[in-house]
Amino acid sequence: MKFVSFTRLGRAGFGALVEGGIVDLTGRLSYDCLTLKQAILDDLLEIAGDYVQDRKPELALSDVALLPVIPDPAKILCIGVNYVAHREETKRPEVGYPTVFTRFADTQIGHGQPMVKPARSNSLDFEAELAVVIGRGGRNIAEEDALDHIAGYSCYHDGSVRDWQRHTSQFVPGKNYPATAGFGPALVTPDEVGDYRKLSITGRLNGEVVQQATLDDLIFSIPQLIAYLSAFTALSAGDVIVTGTPGGVGERREPPLFMKAGDVFEVDIPGVGLLRNPVIAEI
Amino acid sequence: MKFVSFTRLGRAGFGALVEGGIVDLTGRLSYDCLTLKQAILDDLLEIAGDYVQDRKPELALSDVALLPVIPDPAKILCIGVNYVAHREETKRPEVGYPTVFTRFADTQIGHGQPMVKPARSNSLDFEAELAVVIGRGGRNIAEEDALDHIAGYSCYHDGSVRDWQRHTSQFVPGKNYPATAGFGPALVTPDEVGDYRKLSITGRLNGEVVQQATLDDLIFSIPQLIAYLSAFTALSAGDVIVTGTPGGVGERREPPLFMKAGDVFEVDIPGVGLLRNPVIAEI
Repeated sequence: MKFVSFTRLGRAGFGALVEGGIVDLTGRLSYDCLTLKQAILDDLLEIAGDYVQDRKPELALSDVALLPVIPDPAKILCIGVNYVAHREETKRPEVGYPTVFTRFADTQIGHGQPMVKPARSNSLDFEAELAVVIGRGGRNIAEEDALDHIAGYSCYHDGSVRDWQRHTSQFVPGKNYPATAGFGPALVTPDEVGDYRKLSITGRLNGEVVQQATLDDLIFSIPQLIAYLSAFTALSAGDVIVTGTPGGVGERREPPLFMKAGDVFEVDIPGVGLLRNPVIAEI
Repeated sequence: MKFVSFTRLGRAGFGALVEGGIVDLTGRLSYDCLTLKQAILDDLLEIAGDYVQDRKPELALSDVALLPVIPDPAKILCIGVNYVAHREETKRPEVGYPTVFTRFADTQIGHGQPMVKPARSNSLDFEAELAVVIGRGGRNIAEEDALDHIAGYSCYHDGSVRDWQRHTSQFVPGKNYPATAGFGPALVTPDEVGDYRKLSITGRLNGEVVQQATLDDLIFSIPQLIAYLSAFTALSAGDVIVTGTPGGVGERREPPLFMKAGDVFEVDIPGVGLLRNPVIAEI
């Protein structure tokens, strides 16, 4: 199954993505279940499958504006330097633990929405990533149980304002400009994805491949990330783990290749989705 | 004025701290204003002054359990190495910008509540700090306007799990164990505090002074912090800026001095409050 969050006629909702459009699920699985995060928390995604089965799409994709898959996660935990090629290009040392930084929810945009290049920076860089959305929450989740805690996967574009990221040792300022994180188009459930390690991920800037890897290349696997993160913080339904970006980022190219207004960046993970965001200049 | 958030008989509320106890303000300033964050957002703190004026306290402090001053800030922005003495002891270079990391709200505890030493670490360290709570939100707030955006001040104990903080370059894991951040006892409004640069801050472990500074020692002043932070992220009512800790932290002592079960740490900022939290071991 694939699920999307959207706005339509000024109201937020969610639905299932099916052949030909969207089956609206807002308030349909239970009267007070109005968001995808709530549906995950209430463990309603399987029931949604039954509900959707006999229905035709009521909404065309063109009828709605897609929101970030989860517009308001309680926690967005991003992993830095989690592919060997990216670690080598950033000249960071090998580490025994995942590198963890955070985003605020108001940095996120949905598929098709514009990413905003800040007026005061010319170093907005691309980072194609696979996102994991937590289903069943928990603390101290064991690696061997970790996959059972996943509601699904999506594409993530962890747009990074490099000069602000490098102001000090901590990445937060460069990772938290508004509208710099693409998240979508849809949540794809694990039964549909299968073994995530077989996924490939491609980042394309204006149609040209700039990043390419397979998810088997992750330094810290998704079960290892869930175990590590849940060791220090409780994970809850709808929390997002952004698993890191492959080599090829713009900052490490010669000459550097940063995004500017008019560019289009795509995160393409066959089997999970194609996330496309144009870049605009801050007004 | 001084405001507190609390639970009583299993329900959360907020009130004004007055001679002899608390005047309950939960639902009293407007029927749907049930939290201190909401009162700040609705700009009701001044009205609260009128409401409180003729009233006697209805609740003794012993009737309630104090919550973190703002239990659920949308953003908790912590500043690292913001006193010269602490920067020198950590051997970090001079930087041109504030060092910014984040906490999740579920790391916070109120005055009197126990700070929890994680079972898997023996390096829980103390950090006495002044917290700023945002009143009127905004983006790109100018330094000269910044003080007008403050709802008040409080004490903060930024308890730090040093080994986890040092796993990689990013501080997040060591700063986000549950129940490691004391925040309270009360929000004290700027008219009562006056010029924050004249405040002194003292950290005491089991009664012994281990940190001592004046707020005039901050490398980046509070207006500078608000201007810098609001340049990359919108600030909202109830957001918390934790302004950094003076020198003297346990990790940099010879031998190191970490907190253990049975210890009591106090953050004492005369004119703002005395925050006291005992330390317990994780079960």
